[in-house]
Amino acid sequence: MAQKMNILIGQSGGPTAVINASLAGALSYALKSEGTGTVYGAVNGIEGFLNGQTENLTKRFQNNSELLDRLKYTPAMYLGSCRYKLPVYKEAPELYGKIFSQFLEYGIGCFLYIGGNDSMDTVSKLSAYGLERHPGIRIIGIPKTIDNDLTEIDHTPGYGSAAKYIAASMLEMIHDTCIYPMQSVLLVEIMGRNAGWLTAAAALARNEYNTAPHLVYLPEVPFSTSAFIQEIKQKLSVHKHVIAAISEGIRDTQNQYISAQASRIDQFGHIMLSGTGKYLEGLITDTVGCKVRSVELSVLQRCAGHTASLTDITEAFTLGEEGVAAALLGHSGKMVTMTRAAGTGYEVNYGLAPIERIANAERKVPREWIHPSGHDIMPELLDYVRPLIAGEAAIPYRNGIPDYLFRENADAQK
Amino acid sequence: MAQKMNILIGQSGGPTAVINASLAGALSYALKSEGTGTVYGAVNGIEGFLNGQTENLTKRFQNNSELLDRLKYTPAMYLGSCRYKLPVYKEAPELYGKIFSQFLEYGIGCFLYIGGNDSMDTVSKLSAYGLERHPGIRIIGIPKTIDNDLTEIDHTPGYGSAAKYIAASMLEMIHDTCIYPMQSVLLVEIMGRNAGWLTAAAALARNEYNTAPHLVYLPEVPFSTSAFIQEIKQKLSVHKHVIAAISEGIRDTQNQYISAQASRIDQFGHIMLSGTGKYLEGLITDTVGCKVRSVELSVLQRCAGHTASLTDITEAFTLGEEGVAAALLGHSGKMVTMTRAAGTGYEVNYGLAPIERIANAERKVPREWIHPSGHDIMPELLDYVRPLIAGEAAIPYRNGIPDYLFRENADAQK
Repeated sequence: MAQKMNILIGQSGGPTAVINASLAGALSYALKSEGTGTVYGAVNGIEGFLNGQTENLTKRFQNNSELLDRLKYTPAMYLGSCRYKLPVYKEAPELYGKIFSQFLEYGIGCFLYIGGNDSMDTVSKLSAYGLERHPGIRIIGIPKTIDNDLTEIDHTPGYGSAAKYIAASMLEMIHDTCIYPMQSVLLVEIMGRNAGWLTAAAALARNEYNTAPHLVYLPEVPFSTSAFIQEIKQKLSVHKHVIAAISEGIRDTQNQYISAQASRIDQFGHIMLSGTGKYLEGLITDTVGCKVRSVELSVLQRCAGHTASLTDITEAFTLGEEGVAAALLGHSGKMVTMTRAAGTGYEVNYGLAPIERIANAERKVPREWIHPSGHDIMPELLDYVRPLIAGEAAIPYRNGIPDYLFRENADAQK
Repeated sequence: MAQKMNILIGQSGGPTAVINASLAGALSYALKSEGTGTVYGAVNGIEGFLNGQTENLTKRFQNNSELLDRLKYTPAMYLGSCRYKLPVYKEAPELYGKIFSQFLEYGIGCFLYIGGNDSMDTVSKLSAYGLERHPGIRIIGIPKTIDNDLTEIDHTPGYGSAAKYIAASMLEMIHDTCIYPMQSVLLVEIMGRNAGWLTAAAALARNEYNTAPHLVYLPEVPFSTSAFIQEIKQKLSVHKHVIAAISEGIRDTQNQYISAQASRIDQFGHIMLSGTGKYLEGLITDTVGCKVRSVELSVLQRCAGHTASLTDITEAFTLGEEGVAAALLGHSGKMVTMTRAAGTGYEVNYGLAPIERIANAERKVPREWIHPSGHDIMPELLDYVRPLIAGEAAIPYRNGIPDYLFRENADAQK
């Protein structure tokens, strides 16, 4: 009898509402499979694993479908995250040696890493190293990011739930804004450094009684503050209440962030933004003079599990299952993907793509899905997003709030 | 046969998730009652009514229970709002004359005003005038405010839903915050100028795995920035991630708003606040040096119908019904109220209170429900709030987002 393969699963990058659904899918598949042994979790991603932080997931979740179900609906990351950039092999060969010797120590035959661009970079580096030296250890990427900016996949898990939160919140804020008789402007700042997918989702709030948001500014189009003021004024001549969805990542024609004065840089070299909305709020107050409010959707857009899209949860869960299935079939250096099936209804086919095509690549909103004016989107984009926010998950509640799952001592200081 | 009494309903002040539930309750009761004629809506409150803006609600809602049901679950205000301070009679007798002559013109026998402190002031002034000169016209107040600061009532409709949103969002942000291994501070800024009821509700996120928010700052207790820094540092020695719920209305020992530099004053003389969280974020960055994020829950805490409390919706609806019932019985100058029934289970009794005891009065969190330290709350406060967030409303969804109701042309410029 062949030796059973232990499995290691890690999570990395920023939270989404459905990363744990992928973890639950992988766990559920692994716990049911003949060929798998113990499933370990890497606590705080590959960085935590390097520090020896693991949790025996088999022990906690085996024969406990209630717990596994609760995990499926819990937002953020059960195992914790890291923001760790794995150096290239040449710069730190001992690190690669250490990771793989730990893999061997734990009897790991498969490492599944759930994450975005940076995590897929880790999968790419480790799998390239592993294929040469430890071909028995399979390394698979499972995609997640609210930003929807991974290539080789129709859309990323996490995006649909964030889009649903943004669309529903936008509609509710429109109801809130329209109650007063005086003119006003509402600016809603939405996440997405370089890709406008999330900001575009705000337009899903439009329906037969509502044309707002009236303006949509994506980071793919250079932003002009003087044009912005004119566009607000023009819309105010038609609507009593003008509502704009604005990406945190809008930049001027010199490629400088509009919120540049408030920005800092994180360890990946990403600029951390805040204050685009507040900056433009001040600008409108000074130049137009009507009532203005800016709202930053902030972290809730990525962690509001209570409005998760059922489609998103289901797909994220399936991708977790598919990841384990691929590893058991001997694949490595791949990311599990979804392709939208042709035809009138919405359906996806699951598959695999070579990780090197995905790592560090970034998919932006294509120009033809942005309105020629640059401050709205085209109907094709909404047709693309709409199925992704479909369905409401029946999140269990306890004492009036969602009943989520937490890793023991995840909040402890030491 | 006695002449049928037409009814006028208005909404005023800031939005909540359940003001339309009260409108739906009043409408539903009036449309079924033998003694009532046409039900009119005052568009944009008493100010809009003075400008002749009304809508025939009987026409739109009669024999359409689907529409009435949709109204019940729609947040903000179907009829629109106003922020209008009715002058005292001595200063503008002609205004009172105009309002009552319009009442007579429309055959209004009952005016129901759904609102908070300022709206109850309008009810008080109009009913005092009416009782002397037009005793046939009954004026009744229906309470609403997320602030929970009205007197003569156990709690106000709108508060439970806002509290539920705050508690659920707080729990989700805690999951979001705890994923990283490095120390961090999360500051969540919550509405409530003078009363800390909303901020206190953040503590409902505590459960068997989570002790956050670790610090809760209400406006009832003078705030010291130096003590705040010490408290954050102390909590950081115990928890990796320290989370604080902070009222927008915290003030120093000189009664100056902590966010004073960013404040403006509205026409009621209320100070409009923003930026308490951002200010304290900067302070922690400068003095403690760890990662800090501040989140302003902003308008979503008052308009997120998708997380409305079923208890809150049901009570708001019943208060609307009770308002019409009271008017038909001949009451005027009263607000419909709720008293919590004695006993172990949660139950309320509906009643009436004289409006002059409520108008312009403000109920704060009693000192004995705030922890002696001043930066937490007592268990009694949570026992009081918990039943108010109970139950999830089955909001209908369409195309992935809530299916709400909008007044025709509510967004039109002219």
